[in-house]
Amino acid sequence: MAKINENFEKLPGSYLFAEIARRTEAFQEANPDADIIKLGIGDVTRPLVSAVREAMHEAIDEQASSDTFKGYGPYEGYAFLREAIAEHDYASRGMDIEPDEIFVSDGAKSDCGNIGDILSVDNTIAVCDPVYPVYVDSNAIEGRAGEYDVDAEEWTRIHYMPTTAENGFCPALPSGDVDVIYLCSPNNPTGTVLTSEQLKAWVDYANAHDALIMFDAAYERFITEPDIPHSIFEVEGAKTCAIEFRSFSKTAGFTGMRCGYAVIPKALVRQGQSLNELWMRRQSTKFNGASYIIQKGAAAIYTPEGAKQVEASLDYYRQNAKVIKEGLESAGLEVYGAVNSPYVWCKTPHAMGSWDFFNKLLEEAQVVTTPGAGFGPAGEGYIRLTAFGDADQTREAVERIKRIL
Amino acid sequence: MAKINENFEKLPGSYLFAEIARRTEAFQEANPDADIIKLGIGDVTRPLVSAVREAMHEAIDEQASSDTFKGYGPYEGYAFLREAIAEHDYASRGMDIEPDEIFVSDGAKSDCGNIGDILSVDNTIAVCDPVYPVYVDSNAIEGRAGEYDVDAEEWTRIHYMPTTAENGFCPALPSGDVDVIYLCSPNNPTGTVLTSEQLKAWVDYANAHDALIMFDAAYERFITEPDIPHSIFEVEGAKTCAIEFRSFSKTAGFTGMRCGYAVIPKALVRQGQSLNELWMRRQSTKFNGASYIIQKGAAAIYTPEGAKQVEASLDYYRQNAKVIKEGLESAGLEVYGAVNSPYVWCKTPHAMGSWDFFNKLLEEAQVVTTPGAGFGPAGEGYIRLTAFGDADQTREAVERIKRIL
Repeated sequence: MAKINENFEKLPGSYLFAEIARRTEAFQEANPDADIIKLGIGDVTRPLVSAVREAMHEAIDEQASSDTFKGYGPYEGYAFLREAIAEHDYASRGMDIEPDEIFVSDGAKSDCGNIGDILSVDNTIAVCDPVYPVYVDSNAIEGRAGEYDVDAEEWTRIHYMPTTAENGFCPALPSGDVDVIYLCSPNNPTGTVLTSEQLKAWVDYANAHDALIMFDAAYERFITEPDIPHSIFEVEGAKTCAIEFRSFSKTAGFTGMRCGYAVIPKALVRQGQSLNELWMRRQSTKFNGASYIIQKGAAAIYTPEGAKQVEASLDYYRQNAKVIKEGLESAGLEVYGAVNSPYVWCKTPHAMGSWDFFNKLLEEAQVVTTPGAGFGPAGEGYIRLTAFGDADQTREAVERIKRIL
Repeated sequence: MAKINENFEKLPGSYLFAEIARRTEAFQEANPDADIIKLGIGDVTRPLVSAVREAMHEAIDEQASSDTFKGYGPYEGYAFLREAIAEHDYASRGMDIEPDEIFVSDGAKSDCGNIGDILSVDNTIAVCDPVYPVYVDSNAIEGRAGEYDVDAEEWTRIHYMPTTAENGFCPALPSGDVDVIYLCSPNNPTGTVLTSEQLKAWVDYANAHDALIMFDAAYERFITEPDIPHSIFEVEGAKTCAIEFRSFSKTAGFTGMRCGYAVIPKALVRQGQSLNELWMRRQSTKFNGASYIIQKGAAAIYTPEGAKQVEASLDYYRQNAKVIKEGLESAGLEVYGAVNSPYVWCKTPHAMGSWDFFNKLLEEAQVVTTPGAGFGPAGEGYIRLTAFGDADQTREAVERIKRIL
C-alpha cells in the first residue's frame, strides 16, 4: 500500500492571501463603484526592460537553426550567466565568488524550498517571526518542524526569533543550539535590513556552532544606503557557514520568467561533505537546468544598457516606497522598511489588530494591504504595503489613507 | 551542528556519460583525423518549429507593456496550456482528464524527481532494469532505496524488475508487495512499449494492492503503431492508481526550453488523501510556476500549424530510427525498439559485453553509442543508439557499423 508523506496533513491552511482576496471581493460586491487600489501583493508590474526582451528574442531566433539550437544546458546554468553574476554581483563589491560556486535555477523559491534535500531531517531550524512562509512550510513537509500548535500558531520543533521594532528588527542570537538559520535582508515582510555588524554576529555564531545560514537576498537591489551589505559574503567568515539565495524576480521583473540562483561556496563543508558538491548532485538528479531563453534574458541585465534600464525600473519602485513611507509618516504612523526595500512595514495605530486595520483601510480608503499577523504571531499589530504598484495609484492610495486617519 | 542528508554519501558515482566522454576524447586524441559520429546522447537537435518561436516572440512582446505584462503565474500552469493539453493529448484519444488534473512544470525530470516529496519514506519502490536513473537516484536521496550494493549494482530496498528480450520487455508482476512502481512506455532505454493488455495487468495489480504507478510517457509522440496506448489513462482503472509524466522535450524539442507536465487524477487517493491536492500544496510551497514565455511556446504545438510542424520534426527522428533499425538488422544484429521510440536497443553480437561492443564501434566505426550496462545490470549485453542525430550522419554511421560487422 502506497503511503503518503504525513507531514502534509500537519500543515495549516495557507489562508492569508485567500482571505485577503475574499474580503476584498466581498467589499467590492457590496460597493460596486468602489475604486479599490491593491498595495498588498509582492509581485512586480513594470514591463521587462528592452535589453532583456531583445536578448530573449535573439535567443529564440537561435533556435531556428540546428547550428545554433540549444538542447539540454548545464544543470548549474550556462557559464555566460554565472560569469556575469560572479563579476557584477560579487567581484564588483569586492567578493571573490567563483562561477562554479553559483547555481542558476528557475527561481529563489525553488532553491529555498529544495535546499532541504541536501540536509538531514535531524536539524533544528531557526526562522525570524514574522517570516516568508516558504522556509517554514518546506521544512515542515520534510519533517523538520514537528507538530503545528494551532493556538500558538507555531511548529513545536521550529525555533522562532521575534523580529520587531523592540529589537530593531534584528533577531537575538539563540540561547540553545540551532543548526540551520534562515535570514532575509532586506527582509520580507518587514522591509528592514541587517547591518554588517549584525550579520557578523550571526556568521560568528554559525561558525562557532557549525550551523548553516540560509541567507535570502532576493531584494538586495533595493538597498540604497551605502553601508548595508548586499550579500552575506561581504562579511568575513561567511564562506564557511552560509548559502545565499538571489533572484531576478524583483531585480529585473522576472516573476513570470523564472530565474534565480544560489551561491554555495566551495569552503562550505559539514560532516566532511562539500555542500557545493551535494547541491550539484541534487540538481543533476532532480533538475535539468533553467530555460536557455530566460538565462539569456537574465544575462542582459549585466550589460551597460541593461543595467541602466533595470535601475530605472527599480527607481520607479523605490520612489513608490518613498511616497508610501513619507505619506504614512506624515499621517502620524510608525513606519519601517521602505528605504532599502520595496516593502513598507507599518505599525497599526492605537494598537489595532492587523486584520482590524486591514478592514479599516479597505472599507474607508479602499486600499488593500497585507495584515502582518499573516506572516507570524510577531507580525500582529503591523501591516505590509508594497511599492510594486502603479505610481499614480500608489500616490492616490496614500492620500486616501491620510484622509481617513 | 548542521547535519547533511547522509543518503547522498551512498550514491554511486554517475559515471556513464562521463566515461563515454572520456573514452571518446581519448580516441579522438589518439586519432585526430577520425570523424566521430555520436549516436549516444538522448538530446534533440532539430530547430524549434516556427509556430513555437512565433508564440514565444509574441509572449516576449507582451512583456513590453504594463497592460500585458505577466508576473507570477498559477503554480499549476496557465489555463490556456492546461486546457489545450486536456483537449489535444487526452480528450482527442477518448480520455476524460480535466485541466485541474494537469500540473505544468519546468520538465518531466523535475516532476519525476520531486514527486517523492508527497510520499512517505516508508514505501517499497519497484523499477525496471534497465532504467532511467532519475527514478532510482531521487528515491535513494529521499531514503527509500536502502544501501547500495556495489557488487550487485543494486540498492537493497529497491525491487528491480528485469526487462529484457526474454520477457518481451514487459516486467513480471512482483511476487511480494511493492508500493510505488515506475513504468516508462515508450521505454528509455529499451525503446520498447507496453500494450494495453500489459498495462491493464499493472493497473489491476496496483488497484488490488493500493499501490501507485508512476507512468513516464515522455516519448509517447514517437508511437506509430495504432493499438499502443499513449497514456496510462487509456486503461480502465488507471485514474485510481496512476500518475503520468509528460514532457515537451522530445515532443517539440524543448530540452533547452524546459516544460513538462504531470497528470494526477482527482480520483487518486491514498490513506484518505487526494494526491492531486498534495501535489498542488507541494508545488505552491516549493515552486512558482513554469515560465510564461515557455508555456506560450508549448501551447503553440496544439495549433493546427504548430501540430503539423512538430509532426514533421518527429518524422525526421522517426526516419532516423528506421534507418538505424533496418541497417543493424541487415547486418545480422538483434534490434528492439525504434518503431515507437527514438531509442534503438541492440543486442551485442557474439554475447559481447556492452562496453566491449561500445569500444569496437568507437574504434572501428568511429560511432559513439551508449552501453546498456550503464542503465542497470540487465542492460548488459545491449547498447542504446538514438535517433536524435543528423539524418546524413545517422545513415553514414549505420553504413560504417555494417561494414565492420
